Amino acid sequence: MSYLANSWYCAGWSSELDSGTIGRTFLARPIVIYRDSHHETVALDGRCPHRFAPLAKGVVKGDTLMCPYHGLVFDRSGACVHNPHGDGHIPPNAKVRSYPVVEKNGAIWIWLGDPDEADIQQISETSWLTDKAYASVTGYLKVHANYQLVSDNLLDLTHAPFLHANTVGGDPEDSIGQQMEIDFHMDDGNVIHSDYLVRNMRRPTPQMRPLWGDRPGDFRAEMTWRPASVQELDIRMSPPGAPKTEGVHVPSLDYLVPENDLVTHYFFAVGRNVAIEDDEQTEMMGRFARMAFEQEDEPMIRDCQDLMGTTDLFSLQPAILKTDIASIQARRILNKLIKQSSRNAKAGAAMESA
Amino acid sequence: MSYLANSWYCAGWSSELDSGTIGRTFLARPIVIYRDSHHETVALDGRCPHRFAPLAKGVVKGDTLMCPYHGLVFDRSGACVHNPHGDGHIPPNAKVRSYPVVEKNGAIWIWLGDPDEADIQQISETSWLTDKAYASVTGYLKVHANYQLVSDNLLDLTHAPFLHANTVGGDPEDSIGQQMEIDFHMDDGNVIHSDYLVRNMRRPTPQMRPLWGDRPGDFRAEMTWRPASVQELDIRMSPPGAPKTEGVHVPSLDYLVPENDLVTHYFFAVGRNVAIEDDEQTEMMGRFARMAFEQEDEPMIRDCQDLMGTTDLFSLQPAILKTDIASIQARRILNKLIKQSSRNAKAGAAMESA
Amino acid sequence: MSYLANSWYCAGWSSELDSGTIGRTFLARPIVIYRDSHHETVALDGRCPHRFAPLAKGVVKGDTLMCPYHGLVFDRSGACVHNPHGDGHIPPNAKVRSYPVVEKNGAIWIWLGDPDEADIQQISETSWLTDKAYASVTGYLKVHANYQLVSDNLLDLTHAPFLHANTVGGDPEDSIGQQMEIDFHMDDGNVIHSDYLVRNMRRPTPQMRPLWGDRPGDFRAEMTWRPASVQELDIRMSPPGAPKTEGVHVPSLDYLVPENDLVTHYFFAVGRNVAIEDDEQTEMMGRFARMAFEQEDEPMIRDCQDLMGTTDLFSLQPAILKTDIASIQARRILNKLIKQSSRNAKAGAAMESA
Repeated sequence: MSYLANSWYCAGWSSELDSGTIGRTFLARPIVIYRDSHHETVALDGRCPHRFAPLAKGVVKGDTLMCPYHGLVFDRSGACVHNPHGDGHIPPNAKVRSYPVVEKNGAIWIWLGDPDEADIQQISETSWLTDKAYASVTGYLKVHANYQLVSDNLLDLTHAPFLHANTVGGDPEDSIGQQMEIDFHMDDGNVIHSDYLVRNMRRPTPQMRPLWGDRPGDFRAEMTWRPASVQELDIRMSPPGAPKTEGVHVPSLDYLVPENDLVTHYFFAVGRNVAIEDDEQTEMMGRFARMAFEQEDEPMIRDCQDLMGTTDLFSLQPAILKTDIASIQARRILNKLIKQSSRNAKAGAAMESA
Repeated sequence: MSYLANSWYCAGWSSELDSGTIGRTFLARPIVIYRDSHHETVALDGRCPHRFAPLAKGVVKGDTLMCPYHGLVFDRSGACVHNPHGDGHIPPNAKVRSYPVVEKNGAIWIWLGDPDEADIQQISETSWLTDKAYASVTGYLKVHANYQLVSDNLLDLTHAPFLHANTVGGDPEDSIGQQMEIDFHMDDGNVIHSDYLVRNMRRPTPQMRPLWGDRPGDFRAEMTWRPASVQELDIRMSPPGAPKTEGVHVPSLDYLVPENDLVTHYFFAVGRNVAIEDDEQTEMMGRFARMAFEQEDEPMIRDCQDLMGTTDLFSLQPAILKTDIASIQARRILNKLIKQSSRNAKAGAAMESA
Repeated sequence: MSYLANSWYCAGWSSELDSGTIGRTFLARPIVIYRDSHHETVALDGRCPHRFAPLAKGVVKGDTLMCPYHGLVFDRSGACVHNPHGDGHIPPNAKVRSYPVVEKNGAIWIWLGDPDEADIQQISETSWLTDKAYASVTGYLKVHANYQLVSDNLLDLTHAPFLHANTVGGDPEDSIGQQMEIDFHMDDGNVIHSDYLVRNMRRPTPQMRPLWGDRPGDFRAEMTWRPASVQELDIRMSPPGAPKTEGVHVPSLDYLVPENDLVTHYFFAVGRNVAIEDDEQTEMMGRFARMAFEQEDEPMIRDCQDLMGTTDLFSLQPAILKTDIASIQARRILNKLIKQSSRNAKAGAAMESA
């Protein structure tokens, strides 16, 4: 399977770098991330070019990173700048690739493709994460399934009344069928919006009850998907008929990154614009999110992956429902972009060799 | 590896359906089994055609089964009869295969091949399981080895004095070599009988001692094998020289079903015609059977599988003993039937396309 | 991957045979080793030719070994000499291969290649293991990495100050760079010597301190490698400027044997020529060796193996340092000998068929 390398992927939460390096595999490539002495973030290939030791277990020394096995030292460009042995000679291939990496609103973003294409304007805007009008909580999960199955799950919220009745799902009685209005539309060709609206929902979801109370309201869940696998979900509860900006706003985000075809990094955050100084509420919000995913979604997604026996959904000729439109379009966009990248890379290589 | 699909396989014990659905993989196919509102048993492909969720984790509603992921509902024919979302449209390929399934004497039987060939007369007769003159106990084990290695084990009881001296095996002093008479014969070309007789066995097996006492007797172990992998073993202890119907009768059965090439479902039962109201005896009988298999046979069979590194016994050119005749013949019959099925399937396909 | 079969490999410690058979897989071949009634060591293929049961779980009876599954009995040549069943007929292919095996200085050595090439003079001399002037301790570890990565680790001791500062490594301040003199040379074309010398080391290694004290000395670590993967390491601490034979001598050995491409048997021993009656010191020496390997080397080697994703180091075009010379030469010698063996085997086969 090929991945979309020309895309910003979340590599972790900024707070993780406070306690040392981050070592993770993205798109089947081991990566190490550290902060240098100027608090600048550095991302390098995660294995030493000498004996392939894990640089993530190395030691940051000023602006450099020292390999834990034989002590070779690399700078932020990935060049080996010190060999502590013998006469200190450094062979020319003693270097690793470095990657564009930036921090934004508390998240670390890495670009694994052509550095000339890396445009930080394309990085997910999630200002609520650092907005003082919101309280928020972040987390991380590892999922043993292909990342597109996790995207599919998030892009089709009709599963919520069936899988999440005890957490983030609505009561099946008033949140399925025609009662649930779904508005699907696309931006720029590549950004997908899938907005769910239940007018006058009689009973709020368990997650929403502590914030909104046990009274009816208009329930909205507005999902935005950007390639390769960034998802932002705005959940809102408003007085019946009122504008959606009135009432409770629970924004959340789901940043998925393939570790490989069968393992997915899942970075999530969830916020709220009410009772923002109530730490117990914050803790509970994190617990709801984690429970919904760890105990309800993840086992189901993993089961599906096991029963599929492949990561190619379309090869199994699935029965496609109208409510699958967002997930099907996201898969088509992603396939298209991966093919384009591959064509461009070949064309570039041909021009260089011409 | 190919399996014999045109065969009845045990899918579980009827009592398992009292507490919900059964989800198991047979012949590498995930299957769900449930009982409808008329107490009829239904067997369907175990993965939803929409997103391949495990139907075995679904909810039985009357005669139908609801998928746990997005709530699609299937009837006993495997057709999707309800889509709870949007306008409720059901795409034509929203259906799963259904399989012939019957219950008999407390066991559930499934036919995974051509439904037109399914003849319930071919199902194993084990009337003692529900006969009031017998007390019996059933069980289930999962074996991490190819099912034919388990069959081989059961079809060659000469291993018993070596592996089962503490449970179901005879004392090597009076149950090996010429003292053990073995009568091998076949019925109908495809049913194998392998009857073991030790005349005047001086010391009964540990399993038999509580039932027969510690005195000599004629010991019989009569094994019947039917393709694909149904085994029935009648163990008897009779006064020396008396007809075999006198004395203690301990019938047992071993129903093997390949989950895949390297994992086997093992359904077993064991009964007795003496002390049938003694629950302690029943409990001990189950314990003996389980101990003999779990602690003695299974580790050995798994070791052999590991050391073979293949599921194709003949490719390793094994040294064949005369006492291997039953297991070798069973493998030949099975290979023959699998080839015949495959030829018939091709011929059928050719006729249809002609 | 192919192995060098024409080589003596350590199969275990003699003491292991006191309590029964040894069952291990060497070069991807399961082997059983036992002692016969004359205390002679026997090595046979570890799987029974009948049903491929593990002979290592069998029972030694006099000079023979009985299979645990059906009781076939094999003699020291590997021939089946008893079939306990029926008329006792033994089919001609009921035999296993037997291998040259010898015990020397407390270690068991096996030759898995052409028996005509087995020359016991080539077996590692480690007389200190049974020399009364030395106290020693032996051990065994299983490593989840290719055996050549373990050899590489041992053949390049420049990793010690980085990985073993708390156990067997010197202080980086006085044991890296030009302070560490390295003398590399080869014997007979196939034996590698890599001798490390730190003159006037200010602070001995943690392992050496209890034996030498906390005062400066000349530190030597002299490594010998013989194909396929025998390593002997002499560590010494002497008064500054004195001959190396003065002072403390800590000889050690590391016998590596591939179980398969990704698993290595690691037999180690370490001795000393001082305080040899101090059992606490002996116990501590074993603990240091085990800690250095289990907690420091092995996790690093396994990480490298995981990150390499292959067992072919050269295919990854590693950056080669001058200090890699011993490990690179050892790999070249091993590759050369494996190719020679393969050519000779083919030539031999051609002559036989001519």
